[in-house]
Amino acid sequence: MKKYNFAIVGATGLVGREMLKVLSEFNLPVGEIKLFATERSKGQKLLFCDKELTVQSVEKGCFKDVDIALFSAGSLASKEISPIAVSEGAVVIDNSNAFRMSKKIPLVIPEINPERIKGKGIIANPNCSTIQMLIALYPIYKKFGISRIIVSTYQAVSGTGKAAIEELYIQTKGILSGKEPVAKIYPHQIAFNCLPHIDIFEENGFTREEMKMVKETKKILSDDNIKINPTAVRVPVVYGHSESIYFETTAKASLNDIKSALKSFDAVKLVDNPDKNIYPLAIDTEKTDKVLVGRLRRDIDNPLAFNMWVAGNNIRKGAALNAVQIASYIINNNLI
Amino acid sequence: MKKYNFAIVGATGLVGREMLKVLSEFNLPVGEIKLFATERSKGQKLLFCDKELTVQSVEKGCFKDVDIALFSAGSLASKEISPIAVSEGAVVIDNSNAFRMSKKIPLVIPEINPERIKGKGIIANPNCSTIQMLIALYPIYKKFGISRIIVSTYQAVSGTGKAAIEELYIQTKGILSGKEPVAKIYPHQIAFNCLPHIDIFEENGFTREEMKMVKETKKILSDDNIKINPTAVRVPVVYGHSESIYFETTAKASLNDIKSALKSFDAVKLVDNPDKNIYPLAIDTEKTDKVLVGRLRRDIDNPLAFNMWVAGNNIRKGAALNAVQIASYIINNNLI
Repeated sequence: MKKYNFAIVGATGLVGREMLKVLSEFNLPVGEIKLFATERSKGQKLLFCDKELTVQSVEKGCFKDVDIALFSAGSLASKEISPIAVSEGAVVIDNSNAFRMSKKIPLVIPEINPERIKGKGIIANPNCSTIQMLIALYPIYKKFGISRIIVSTYQAVSGTGKAAIEELYIQTKGILSGKEPVAKIYPHQIAFNCLPHIDIFEENGFTREEMKMVKETKKILSDDNIKINPTAVRVPVVYGHSESIYFETTAKASLNDIKSALKSFDAVKLVDNPDKNIYPLAIDTEKTDKVLVGRLRRDIDNPLAFNMWVAGNNIRKGAALNAVQIASYIINNNLI
Repeated sequence: MKKYNFAIVGATGLVGREMLKVLSEFNLPVGEIKLFATERSKGQKLLFCDKELTVQSVEKGCFKDVDIALFSAGSLASKEISPIAVSEGAVVIDNSNAFRMSKKIPLVIPEINPERIKGKGIIANPNCSTIQMLIALYPIYKKFGISRIIVSTYQAVSGTGKAAIEELYIQTKGILSGKEPVAKIYPHQIAFNCLPHIDIFEENGFTREEMKMVKETKKILSDDNIKINPTAVRVPVVYGHSESIYFETTAKASLNDIKSALKSFDAVKLVDNPDKNIYPLAIDTEKTDKVLVGRLRRDIDNPLAFNMWVAGNNIRKGAALNAVQIASYIINNNLI
């Protein structure tokens, strides 16, 4: 049986480590795995199953025997290194924002548009907030159409990385013992606060994070007519993004129709029994790879409008898992 | 000069204490102040300016010499005690949900509908989330009309009371030292989590907190046509509610028109300079009685739709301050 060699670029980061973990959980014919990170992390050891792997730095020719390279090292590194990896023969699955909106690069959520996955070049992984929103909406979109989405996010600090988790913990401990919090990673205190600011501000007043949700949604669904109005907010949560989503369907649907559509979609777990205080929670996303959907209700005035509350694991389905799912699709469909 | 005797019912709670504090800040001709609470708190001493006041329990006739009674003791206590206070001659300003939707009871934000304030009976204080949303929207509503609001809240635990702040702190400390969190006040862990559940669930799938925002808005604006779609969420923030608000105007307005309207409204502070990372923050509401409004932007598709991010002090403008402002209006307009 053919084995596939992998590389993980940015292997020591939160998402890089999770990629390695998810890869060990998938039953894929994995051959060699090369781990790459910056000079600073060179020599660090990470475990793959019970095998110890040593972190290397990227050098000329290092992707020559790599079949699939998973990138999670930030946009700059992706822009610099992934063309090299491709030229040396690897398929790149890139978790950064570098290529998502490039016309020739597919942007893929495997449960939604797997047909875009090719066995060559670069494949982009969407932004975490987009992935969980679209997983929750897609079965409804497919069955009834969706014309409009208004979404407010409640995003965990792990989306920013390890240093941000550290910052939240340090600020929180400090405040609890009467110390003045210091903000380094975020522009303001994140402990016991909400920051309506993720990524940089664009000219239209939306942040880049918000515009990712707009542009990526249209690209993934191949639908330029869908209207999206997002507000992206960082909250003092460690793991798990939550989203408050209002959406309007094109065709009439009952609440039960919506629930049935969601139930039939394997990537979603319907968690919706308010009478028993059951609804999606950020803290419950650690235990599952599914996107949790609940608090389903119809708008009071518009019979074509609905609300849902969605929680998803931003590090796994929002990043590492989605990337490995793409790799898995490539292998299982013999695309390389 | 005539002096006015006050009573505060629920004086030892978070809002009750703040009512006493706000009363000391207002330059009102205050005579005697009686503090009432449950048997458990009887005998407790609280300061008004430099005067020590002793907490009493409610007894027959105790409101006989009271001109204005501020209530913040929960719906049950309000329903039981406020009719007695009124029959003994006091005007009641009630912070609970008990009478807000009663047809004969005015529901008042003094900056919006002061004409509803009468010098007798019960006057209801709206819910905190409604107050800050309407303060932020009212100058726009007045000038351009608003047909529709879609709002997601990020509400601080202080809205639930002292025990909830304690619970957040205890859970947070515990998690930081590796302990399993225990939830007593809330149905689930609130530390490092978001709860899409405030007050009880109603039949239509919205919570009572959400329906307060719908019903109270219509009542305060005397506008049955305005459409409101709310999602109320508790976040691990101690003080200050934030709100992500999408709204549609009836008349055309430029972003500058909207900003001008907001600037001309004294209860609002425009905090909107994203280039310098300046936008409303929950932690900044401790220092101000104004409702902070920022992140103003026009919807990408609908020229009549806008977004804003709003932060307000849920204990002061959301409760105690609004109540004392009503009292102040009664006195200044010689209504009693």
